[in-house]
Amino acid sequence: MSYQDYIRYYPNFPKEGITFIDWMSVMAHAEAFALLIDDLAALVAGRGFTKVAAIEARGLMLGIPLSERLHCGFVPLRKAGKLPGTCFGETYDLEYGTAAMEMQHDMVKPTDKVLIVDDLLALGGTLVAANRLVGNVTNQIEDLVFIRLTDLPQQLTEGVPLHCLLEMREKA
Amino acid sequence: MSYQDYIRYYPNFPKEGITFIDWMSVMAHAEAFALLIDDLAALVAGRGFTKVAAIEARGLMLGIPLSERLHCGFVPLRKAGKLPGTCFGETYDLEYGTAAMEMQHDMVKPTDKVLIVDDLLALGGTLVAANRLVGNVTNQIEDLVFIRLTDLPQQLTEGVPLHCLLEMREKA
Repeated sequence: MSYQDYIRYYPNFPKEGITFIDWMSVMAHAEAFALLIDDLAALVAGRGFTKVAAIEARGLMLGIPLSERLHCGFVPLRKAGKLPGTCFGETYDLEYGTAAMEMQHDMVKPTDKVLIVDDLLALGGTLVAANRLVGNVTNQIEDLVFIRLTDLPQQLTEGVPLHCLLEMREKA
Repeated sequence: MSYQDYIRYYPNFPKEGITFIDWMSVMAHAEAFALLIDDLAALVAGRGFTKVAAIEARGLMLGIPLSERLHCGFVPLRKAGKLPGTCFGETYDLEYGTAAMEMQHDMVKPTDKVLIVDDLLALGGTLVAANRLVGNVTNQIEDLVFIRLTDLPQQLTEGVPLHCLLEMREKA
C-alpha cells in the first residue's frame, strides 16, 4: 500500500472553500511514513546539503526525519516568540493579516547548504519568508515541499531550486 | 562530544524567573541528535509499543524520530483547531489561563500500546492532559520525557509508568 492511499481530504477545513489535505494520517502507519520520507530523500540525495530547516508545525514532522536520512543537522523555523536567544525574524502575509517566524542566529553557518522543507506549497508566502530568514546567513538554499498545489497563483523565490514530490490541484 | 554539551540555558525566557532549557541546539548537530534519540529509544525498547504520540511543538521533534527507531506509527497531539475531522479534545491549565489539545479520533486503536512523548516535564499539566486524550481510546499508555525537572510540584498520571532520560533542577 502506498502512502498516497492514506492521504485524506477534508472539504471546508479550516474554513469554507478550502479543502484540507491531511497527510498526517500517513504517519500513523510506520512503513508508509518511512516510504514517504525515503521518497523525499531520494529527490534531493547527493546535492550536498549540510542542514535541513523546516517550518513549524507540519513542516517539522517531515523535515526532522528527512534530516536524519540526509545526515544533516536540523534547524527549526518557529513562530515568533518561541525561540530563546538572538534570532533572525521575518514577517509574511497570510490570507488575513500577517505572521512572523524566527530562527536562532547561530543554527546555520555561512558555509552551510540548506534544504528548506514544508509540507504544502499553496500561495507560497510562508516558504518565501523562510528563504529570506535562512538567507540572512547563507545563499546556498534549495526548497522542498511534499505537495505542491498547481492551480493557485504562487509566490516563489527566484533563483532557488524547488523540489516537490506530489503535484495536486486544490479544486479537484 | 555528548548531546548534553549542546544544551543551552537562557535565564528569564520566555519570562522573568524561568530558565529556558534549549535542547533544540542539539538538533543542529546530526550525530549528537541521533545519539539523543538512540538513548530515548533504549529507555523504552522491547516494551511493545505500537504507537508514539507526541505533544506539539517541541514534543513532535523528539517523538517523530523516536517513532521510527521503535517502528511505531506516529500520532500528533496538536493545539485545538489544527486537526481536521472528528477529534477528541482536552483542556488543561497553564500558568495563565487554559489551553486545549486535540487528537484525531481514529489515529489510535483500542489495541494500541501508546508511548506519549514530550520534551520537558515541569508542572505536568500538559502531559496529564495528553494521557487523558489518548486514554479516550486505550488504557495501555506509558509516558516518556527527555528532561524532568525535579524541584517543582509535579502533577502525574497515577498508574502510568514515566520514563525520563535526564533529571535537572530548574533552580540551578
